Amino acid sequence: MSTTETQHSPAQNGTNAAQNGKNAGQNQAVTQSLKSHSLAWLEDPEHGIRVPVTEIALESSPNGLANPPLQVYRTAGPGSDPVVGLEPFRTPWIEARADTEAYSGRERNLLDDGKSAVRRGAASAEWKGAQPVPRRAVDGKTVTQMHYAKQGIVTPEMQFVALREGCDVELVRSEVAAGRAIIPNNINHPESEPMIIGKAFLVKINANIGNSAVTSSIAEEVDKLQWAAQWGADTVMDLSTGDDIHTTREWIIRNSPVPIGTVPIYQALEKVNGEANQLTWEIFRDTVIEQCEQGVDYMTIHAGVLLRYVPLTANRVTGIVSRGGSIMAGWCLAHHQENFLYTHFDELCEIFAQYDVAFSLGDGLRPGSVADANDAAQFAELDTLAELTQRAWEFDVQVMVEGPGHIPFHLVRENVERQQELCKGAPFYTLGPLVTDVAPGYDHITSAIGATEIARYGTAMLCYVTPKEHLGLPNKDDVKTGVITYKIAAHAADLAKGHPGAHERDDALSKARFEFRWRDQFALSLDPVTAEAFHDETLPAEPAKTAHFCSMCGPKFCSMRISQDIRDEYGSADSQAAIAGMYNGMREKSQEFLASGGKVYLPELQVPANQGSSSGGLN
Amino acid sequence: MSTTETQHSPAQNGTNAAQNGKNAGQNQAVTQSLKSHSLAWLEDPEHGIRVPVTEIALESSPNGLANPPLQVYRTAGPGSDPVVGLEPFRTPWIEARADTEAYSGRERNLLDDGKSAVRRGAASAEWKGAQPVPRRAVDGKTVTQMHYAKQGIVTPEMQFVALREGCDVELVRSEVAAGRAIIPNNINHPESEPMIIGKAFLVKINANIGNSAVTSSIAEEVDKLQWAAQWGADTVMDLSTGDDIHTTREWIIRNSPVPIGTVPIYQALEKVNGEANQLTWEIFRDTVIEQCEQGVDYMTIHAGVLLRYVPLTANRVTGIVSRGGSIMAGWCLAHHQENFLYTHFDELCEIFAQYDVAFSLGDGLRPGSVADANDAAQFAELDTLAELTQRAWEFDVQVMVEGPGHIPFHLVRENVERQQELCKGAPFYTLGPLVTDVAPGYDHITSAIGATEIARYGTAMLCYVTPKEHLGLPNKDDVKTGVITYKIAAHAADLAKGHPGAHERDDALSKARFEFRWRDQFALSLDPVTAEAFHDETLPAEPAKTAHFCSMCGPKFCSMRISQDIRDEYGSADSQAAIAGMYNGMREKSQEFLASGGKVYLPELQVPANQGSSSGGLN
Repeated sequence: MSTTETQHSPAQNGTNAAQNGKNAGQNQAVTQSLKSHSLAWLEDPEHGIRVPVTEIALESSPNGLANPPLQVYRTAGPGSDPVVGLEPFRTPWIEARADTEAYSGRERNLLDDGKSAVRRGAASAEWKGAQPVPRRAVDGKTVTQMHYAKQGIVTPEMQFVALREGCDVELVRSEVAAGRAIIPNNINHPESEPMIIGKAFLVKINANIGNSAVTSSIAEEVDKLQWAAQWGADTVMDLSTGDDIHTTREWIIRNSPVPIGTVPIYQALEKVNGEANQLTWEIFRDTVIEQCEQGVDYMTIHAGVLLRYVPLTANRVTGIVSRGGSIMAGWCLAHHQENFLYTHFDELCEIFAQYDVAFSLGDGLRPGSVADANDAAQFAELDTLAELTQRAWEFDVQVMVEGPGHIPFHLVRENVERQQELCKGAPFYTLGPLVTDVAPGYDHITSAIGATEIARYGTAMLCYVTPKEHLGLPNKDDVKTGVITYKIAAHAADLAKGHPGAHERDDALSKARFEFRWRDQFALSLDPVTAEAFHDETLPAEPAKTAHFCSMCGPKFCSMRISQDIRDEYGSADSQAAIAGMYNGMREKSQEFLASGGKVYLPELQVPANQGSSSGGLN
Repeated sequence: MSTTETQHSPAQNGTNAAQNGKNAGQNQAVTQSLKSHSLAWLEDPEHGIRVPVTEIALESSPNGLANPPLQVYRTAGPGSDPVVGLEPFRTPWIEARADTEAYSGRERNLLDDGKSAVRRGAASAEWKGAQPVPRRAVDGKTVTQMHYAKQGIVTPEMQFVALREGCDVELVRSEVAAGRAIIPNNINHPESEPMIIGKAFLVKINANIGNSAVTSSIAEEVDKLQWAAQWGADTVMDLSTGDDIHTTREWIIRNSPVPIGTVPIYQALEKVNGEANQLTWEIFRDTVIEQCEQGVDYMTIHAGVLLRYVPLTANRVTGIVSRGGSIMAGWCLAHHQENFLYTHFDELCEIFAQYDVAFSLGDGLRPGSVADANDAAQFAELDTLAELTQRAWEFDVQVMVEGPGHIPFHLVRENVERQQELCKGAPFYTLGPLVTDVAPGYDHITSAIGATEIARYGTAMLCYVTPKEHLGLPNKDDVKTGVITYKIAAHAADLAKGHPGAHERDDALSKARFEFRWRDQFALSLDPVTAEAFHDETLPAEPAKTAHFCSMCGPKFCSMRISQDIRDEYGSADSQAAIAGMYNGMREKSQEFLASGGKVYLPELQVPANQGSSSGGLN
């Protein structure tokens, strides 16, 4: 069941949407190409669940037949005013379980926002929206989705996810119970729409945002969050390392319809003035609790960087390139002690279990160049991540495992297969990987190639890479380019995996293309704004959008028109039966010929085993 | 042996280079980032051969050690003034074989340039450079590289190619003799630098240019040719379908250092006023001879679109999307006769053998959507292309075979393996393939994903796709984006195939990155202009290019610095021996433990079978 509500444009906040920034009149283009998109709902009244989807209205075919609207997965959320934030719609679900309590929470500490905040006595743009009271599990309770799933309990979060994925809720419950999928949703982030990360489900993508010591502001980061979610980011990581880290995160979480991930060691490092040696377990634990109370849904923890693995990186071409990995390696070396994230891992599990925060086990020793791919350091750490996965599961804490990085194309598959085997199917979450190092400025592309390959073999979530990777901080255009590029990789992998329904959007778009329904072709594309703008560069006039030709062939000759003639002549069931008969006759003759020792190059018809008809590979 | 000559910038013609067109001061950026590139020569004085390469000068490492310059494959040619053209440096090689003759050639026909030229009495910008006299084989001779190779003759063209590829010339000769590689170089295009297309060699890319009835001029197309070659196109196809086709091609060929391909049916169709039914073998043959005399190096011939295959496309989602394919299908249906390209194929072979024009056997029935991938129509045509390959080889004519198109990722590999088997290793030349239909505006990316996969398994040349695919005609920026994207796909496939030396550029760039040699990182990238411009958006000051930090982490903390500390402490041979000893001890203990029934998750060291050291996958 589904209903349609208000008009909503995924780019309504956008004034700078087209990829190449070259097109005048973009705002008008936004309006034109997205006006057929609307917010609709999948409804499950029995369980009181409704899931937002984007509905794309389509025009009729030239033969007059209507084309049904297409509903597609939607990450944009209902939209929010940044200074107000989103409705905490999951709160009733959480409260109904009666296993959590509100509490006063950790005391505010100005150093959470860095030295500038301490000097000023405030962050630069304090959060003035609703100040939610933090919740945690009541003593002795575990409040993770994995815990419920293992008990056989189907939560509203699981119902939401099942409706969203179009699958049976038992698949959701059983995959979460087995650790093969996670639903990252901290009980202190009740604004977020549940989503699932696991290889049995649609491949997800993450977008990184966050300020740095060099540049950017809170408002910009909130804008990037909304922008990323609108174009299709399934989760967003806030990797801020500059001023106002706590407050920036508050703005982000309160406005985020998608799960938020962080790397808490970044903030902990700021609290010790950037001196890795000064880090302690106590400072780190305090930072983790701070973030648990704010509502961070998953945290990258570099607990696999063990002291004895560090020397394995010494003769690499690019050493340790993970920032968190090098912080922990630096700490281990400075103290000649084992990584405190490893030695205190059980305590982290106990904390995460109280809020339902998921681990994202960081790959601090991932290769930073194709020369270092699949080396001893990388795989040694993976063994430890597998061990930690098991330990987290003993606490019913959800886990995913991070992966590289820079890997030449032929070595990509080994990464996911090895991770899946060692980590017993825990979701794999990879950065790219980039399949070559030679194209800075285009690393969204070098990495999307590796990402498609690794997702095809079971990676559950792909961390995007923007064109600025290795060169600078992404701006809003870069965020969009990264998100769209990774939607392509994820969708291509869904198609390759034969995910049910994945081909519907391809088929609808291709039908629109074949029928010269230009507006539908734009509307069905991952980025309608850019598609329409590119078309208009060559043929800007409005009538061209309904013209029965395109710029490649011009108005005189049209390959699609000839195809239509062929369909008119041969497309009927009768014609097809006659053709089949003709080819069966040919095949017999051909087989006779082959049996008598003829060459194989006769123009016989070869129908591949997986093709029952001429309509292609996905049906 | 190699020598270095004048400074030369691959972007010297460019005023509009950066991909996203957002950066002010681009011309300055061009100068800065490319000044370390120079034209150098690989010399083979014994055979009088010298091959141009681009030499990239590198700075010293922070430890004071010099980094040798890197020489990379160069397609840009020596550069030419468009109105003069390039030096015909291959003429002495051709004349020395004494198997060709100059002759008067076919008479100029104004209709070669379309109706506007007939009306005006001239093309719009007649070629005024040197008017070469056409050559052809003397009666009874075959002048193809395949013919020489089969005789055991090593030509200067083969010597040139071997020096260029860094391989033994016997590999070149034997692969050409066997039909597994081609050297497309018409004797009437003596300006071109020989290159080879075959799976034993570096993966090549093609860029399409050409005007259409809707837009563009001769000067623009020549500019696009030079631009494409400068950024790395190995061949260029002129797909013009508008006015001045003959004259546009003359300008292009006289200025092209790379082989030029065409689809002669496009021009033939213009000669019959766009009416496919009016096409005849005679008009087509005359067009082919016209183009042979001009110097076209390879021609796409849609001889596999047989009458009986046409109905197989009737129920496809996107019918026939190849323009040439639909022209021939339209002709077959209109006349109820077999495709004249098929019935006259032997005559085409006889013509091509006189000029050394290579076939590019067109896949007129390729799928235009993932739904139609690997279907009966596509594979029926491939069977016929295999038959035609054998027929061309009987005439010693060089052949490559074209492939799709739109193919979901998991079905890509089957395409190249089937083609290689059926066509006995004849080079495969594919358009992408695009692995999803849902991203118009980003089809350079959707197709680069498929291109990497198909090249990994043996496709020899990749036809680029620009961001404008399906939407409009590519401008100069689009051409560059398409070329760089396809250089990425081709190079990633070379790495995956373990092509000797392919990883040198990756390793040099990664070393520069690790050592914060920013200028070297830009210079070594496929697109130095964009890399430098992106860096400068965040950190524009000149000192930042030598700063020991980047914008991601800021000046305070640097993961690369920690890695350097690790290297200083553990990177020596003694340290590494000690580490190896430690790990051998650990492994023994671990094996004991496993033997006694322990868990596999102990943090033992796992060294993959193909990795002898920690220095990565390609060494």
